[in-house]
Amino acid sequence: MEKILWELVQLVRQQSPLVHNITNYGVMNNTANALLAAGASPIMAHAKSEIKEMIAISHSVVINIGTLDEYWSESMIMAADTAHSTGKPWVLDPVGAGATSFRDEVLNRLLPYQPTVIRGNASEIIALAKANITVTKGVDSTAKSNEAIDAARSLAGQYEAIVCISGETDIILDHQQEIFIKNGHPLMTKVTGLGCSATALIGAFIGIAENKVLAVAAAMAVIGIAGELAAEESNGPGSLQVNLTDKLYSITEQEFSSRLKIERL
Amino acid sequence: MEKILWELVQLVRQQSPLVHNITNYGVMNNTANALLAAGASPIMAHAKSEIKEMIAISHSVVINIGTLDEYWSESMIMAADTAHSTGKPWVLDPVGAGATSFRDEVLNRLLPYQPTVIRGNASEIIALAKANITVTKGVDSTAKSNEAIDAARSLAGQYEAIVCISGETDIILDHQQEIFIKNGHPLMTKVTGLGCSATALIGAFIGIAENKVLAVAAAMAVIGIAGELAAEESNGPGSLQVNLTDKLYSITEQEFSSRLKIERL
Amino acid sequence: MEKILWELVQLVRQQSPLVHNITNYGVMNNTANALLAAGASPIMAHAKSEIKEMIAISHSVVINIGTLDEYWSESMIMAADTAHSTGKPWVLDPVGAGATSFRDEVLNRLLPYQPTVIRGNASEIIALAKANITVTKGVDSTAKSNEAIDAARSLAGQYEAIVCISGETDIILDHQQEIFIKNGHPLMTKVTGLGCSATALIGAFIGIAENKVLAVAAAMAVIGIAGELAAEESNGPGSLQVNLTDKLYSITEQEFSSRLKIERL
Repeated sequence: MEKILWELVQLVRQQSPLVHNITNYGVMNNTANALLAAGASPIMAHAKSEIKEMIAISHSVVINIGTLDEYWSESMIMAADTAHSTGKPWVLDPVGAGATSFRDEVLNRLLPYQPTVIRGNASEIIALAKANITVTKGVDSTAKSNEAIDAARSLAGQYEAIVCISGETDIILDHQQEIFIKNGHPLMTKVTGLGCSATALIGAFIGIAENKVLAVAAAMAVIGIAGELAAEESNGPGSLQVNLTDKLYSITEQEFSSRLKIERL
Repeated sequence: MEKILWELVQLVRQQSPLVHNITNYGVMNNTANALLAAGASPIMAHAKSEIKEMIAISHSVVINIGTLDEYWSESMIMAADTAHSTGKPWVLDPVGAGATSFRDEVLNRLLPYQPTVIRGNASEIIALAKANITVTKGVDSTAKSNEAIDAARSLAGQYEAIVCISGETDIILDHQQEIFIKNGHPLMTKVTGLGCSATALIGAFIGIAENKVLAVAAAMAVIGIAGELAAEESNGPGSLQVNLTDKLYSITEQEFSSRLKIERL
Repeated sequence: MEKILWELVQLVRQQSPLVHNITNYGVMNNTANALLAAGASPIMAHAKSEIKEMIAISHSVVINIGTLDEYWSESMIMAADTAHSTGKPWVLDPVGAGATSFRDEVLNRLLPYQPTVIRGNASEIIALAKANITVTKGVDSTAKSNEAIDAARSLAGQYEAIVCISGETDIILDHQQEIFIKNGHPLMTKVTGLGCSATALIGAFIGIAENKVLAVAAAMAVIGIAGELAAEESNGPGSLQVNLTDKLYSITEQEFSSRLKIERL
């Protein structure tokens, strides 16, 4: 498995997938830098007047609802629809799911376009499953059990999506399998937007990899390991961000393989 | 006083206040990072469809008019109104006050919602008092005397606000008292958005502290001292930004207390 | 020539031109930091309600269409019109020209306001000349020859603009002369928005320099040389961004003159 994931890291460097991001204002810069460092090519574009054309030239689409508003929500729905109908892989980052009814409504409009991948933290994945009451049965009680993994299984089953719950252990699952990755460093939670960078990297990897589950695993592994390597040289969250970008760019097979902590069910 | 301010620094780290920011595009990333480094939790959200719900779950609100436009000005007014009517502390950063009539009009619509704190540089505080001609008498002449401190006193009196004039010496005043903080480093003026980060930190501190004047003092002290510590290890404004974020995260009581330069009238 | 360009670098530091940027979300922070580091003063403002007043107080205007949408395109056209009619120098960065018809339409509406400078990479300059079919004759075939320099000459002739094609060699031309600058470092292409920073620096330099061609050459030289110096101390694109900002701030005449690689036709 280490070998396959590393080959995907190299594939992104070689093929430089074009990743179309409709993402939040706070992370556009470091998300673009994460994509560039990993070897991909970022596009940041949200205008309804050009979304369809942008998706046509891209390998994949990233939709991150962080700084959502009414206009952007329409752009995102248009993008999800276009990606879905033209067969482009896309990843949904449900930032702040559950925080407001507006977010939940927009998420409920996005989900039917079947994201290839949904990546969020545990509370977002739970909230996403909960919000989804008009479509699913029984999720509410599942969610109340406070188990993100049950919420993830429910979402995965319902939308044929891969769900990635990021946290101390990253859990990646679809209806068939579950993968656990235990890389990363606690200091990463003190840098804004690293979750968003992970989502964008997932976008890069699913843009070129056949096996989408392994693509998600490779993306989560590479940012987690880069974060570990960076943390060893950092004095705090400011230098961690800088060093993590450097490590995404320079990470070697030796560093990757020796640190990868992965389990597959 | 050193002890009380340091206790507030620790309180933010312990209680991790949720700070709702409606701020400018240029600083969202580093503002969020400053809040995280100091121990707070940032929310960046501006949609009229969700502002009220976001404020309901937040400890405080930050309104920064940097990259203002017509939509955002309405969001800000809605947020100020909501914060005011629900008793949430909020801080106003009048970026570019006086530069255009649009800014002054929006500021004149925000002020009646009585910001808990107004933080700006000397020229912004003067312009804010000047712009305020429909409400106040005599401020115009005060402002023309070019004395930011008179403008600050006028604003503080009229809106029952705490006003913080940031500069080589930070001046924090309300109708009862004046505090002077002489921390910071000249190189900080060469990094974009450190004033905005100061405002956001004020948001974090007023979100949890009873004594709002001391909260503002603690916020200005901690960013000033972090800036001093960072400058000693920096080669220019790029590394200063990185190191300042690290120092906000790692600053110790010893570093804080030994460097704090504060006077109280 | 080295001496004249260095004098312009110093002039920006001394006069601190106010540069009004209507630029893309992803680069506002590092663009503002590049301007500050070089000694200029950035304004980031895009509201139609204040654009004219902002331009009135600025030395120059930067229009960068990176994260374009319908509202921002109108702001940009208003800004270009205002700059043109009031004689303020302005620079156009046609990010993603040719990628969508929306971008090309907006660019075709901006060009008649005669940018003082157009800066893009080779494919953007070619696309810009190609898009311009309603106005020009014969450009289409020129563009198809895939020669950016021919496209640049065509644009320069038609709009009396200076065109800067950035790349391994930066080419700066107007209808009279061509200048080649061979500074910079390949790692710079792995940092998002350094092209946008170059455009913003051009804005600063044309804001105060009489000779606009030399202003563009000085801007491209200083960022290229700062990038070279930074790359020598960097471990990847993360630290390159930080170090480049530091070097823009600290670069000396000795560093500048000894590294400048310039040819003039």
